[in-house]
Amino acid sequence: MYKAVGKAIADRDKRVIQKIAKNQVASGAGMLDVNTGPYEKNPRDAMKWLIESIQEAVNVPLALDSTKADVIEEGLKIVKQKAMINSTSADPEKLNVLVPLAKKYDTYLIGLTMNKKGIPRDKNERTEHAVGIITSCQEAGFNLANLYLDPIVLPVNVAQAQGVEVLESIKEFKLLCDPAPKTVVGLSNISQGTKQRPIINRTYLVMAITCGLSAAILDPLDKDLMDAVITAELVLNKNIYCDSFLDAYRKK
Amino acid sequence: MYKAVGKAIADRDKRVIQKIAKNQVASGAGMLDVNTGPYEKNPRDAMKWLIESIQEAVNVPLALDSTKADVIEEGLKIVKQKAMINSTSADPEKLNVLVPLAKKYDTYLIGLTMNKKGIPRDKNERTEHAVGIITSCQEAGFNLANLYLDPIVLPVNVAQAQGVEVLESIKEFKLLCDPAPKTVVGLSNISQGTKQRPIINRTYLVMAITCGLSAAILDPLDKDLMDAVITAELVLNKNIYCDSFLDAYRKK
Repeated sequence: MYKAVGKAIADRDKRVIQKIAKNQVASGAGMLDVNTGPYEKNPRDAMKWLIESIQEAVNVPLALDSTKADVIEEGLKIVKQKAMINSTSADPEKLNVLVPLAKKYDTYLIGLTMNKKGIPRDKNERTEHAVGIITSCQEAGFNLANLYLDPIVLPVNVAQAQGVEVLESIKEFKLLCDPAPKTVVGLSNISQGTKQRPIINRTYLVMAITCGLSAAILDPLDKDLMDAVITAELVLNKNIYCDSFLDAYRKK
Repeated sequence: MYKAVGKAIADRDKRVIQKIAKNQVASGAGMLDVNTGPYEKNPRDAMKWLIESIQEAVNVPLALDSTKADVIEEGLKIVKQKAMINSTSADPEKLNVLVPLAKKYDTYLIGLTMNKKGIPRDKNERTEHAVGIITSCQEAGFNLANLYLDPIVLPVNVAQAQGVEVLESIKEFKLLCDPAPKTVVGLSNISQGTKQRPIINRTYLVMAITCGLSAAILDPLDKDLMDAVITAELVLNKNIYCDSFLDAYRKK
């Protein structure tokens, strides 16, 4: 849905893709989300081409982001590092395909705590879906250490009460099994349609980190956002303090 | 310890004090901390003069900040709104004087979760002191709804592991009695001696708010800090969203 990326995929112009990948990794991305976009006529071919282009340029694991299992599997055949499947929902027909796929290729798996009936209305519905996803993984013999539960962040301007529900869900998901399942959010959803996107994004991310969030899909080129992450991790004693900790951690 | 304030107190120049008070209230302070500083020869007189000067200029409650009970009482005699005593420690000789004083004048009371043996080393020591303070308040018949427990924030550059201990303490204190005791921090301690004070302050404050912090002693003239507070409260659904929520809340 990003115009420049869409055009580069349509034109199969790998320089554009590789430049974005390099910039994102240089800015601190630990994994890159690969999505062919909704308008691609041959998404399997596009996914393969995207992965090859990105792997030529950078050396990080990839999250294969598609609603179609065959597009994801096309990518899984050629990834060089342990990949992530983005994503399954809590619907049995999704779980029955994607959990075995994640097991077969030994990947991480994002489990969206929603189903085809719609988005969750509160913490309880999220937890219900989370339990369903965990159960499905256990039954399939999928290692829960590879599961990332996504509590579904919603825009604060249209679903303001959901911000707290998501934060509470991040804490509650950790109690569902031992070792605790990991969590991930699609961060920018929180600020969609608002006029103060950066400050809403970074404030909410710090709050989610405080609640124990494991990972986030975000824009690593947003320097203020990454500074907030680095500072939160400093205060949580995950990085050693030095006067220039922001630069030091960025270089690392 | 602020040079301009120290000089204004020494010279009894109320215009300086009143200007600061007006600026702080205009920037969102709900209460002003009044401290005569450590070098004042006549702190009772200075406290009285400060309170009179501030109350001429603004209409907010005051926190009387002194290590001396007689200085605080001098102020309590003339405050126009329900005041706060800043602060007692967990030492019995402090509690035995300051809790009755807070009760007599019906004030809020900050209880520092430390004693004369030194600063707390972890969450457990903080909770131990918190229990001592709560017990002392209960025995004296002091309403716990007026108590603010302070978990003692320490500089991240010298006591990095304490950042998490304080956040955990904020959550744990709330479980000690019902209704939950309130909490307060002296925010700027977290960044003392560092070279990135603003971002450390505002990131840590957002984290503490996420853990349920009730109040903070902070610099309301730090606009980025106040924006972070407003945004955190927006996401926590405490203020209604509008596109210009930062300006709207500031004006309110």
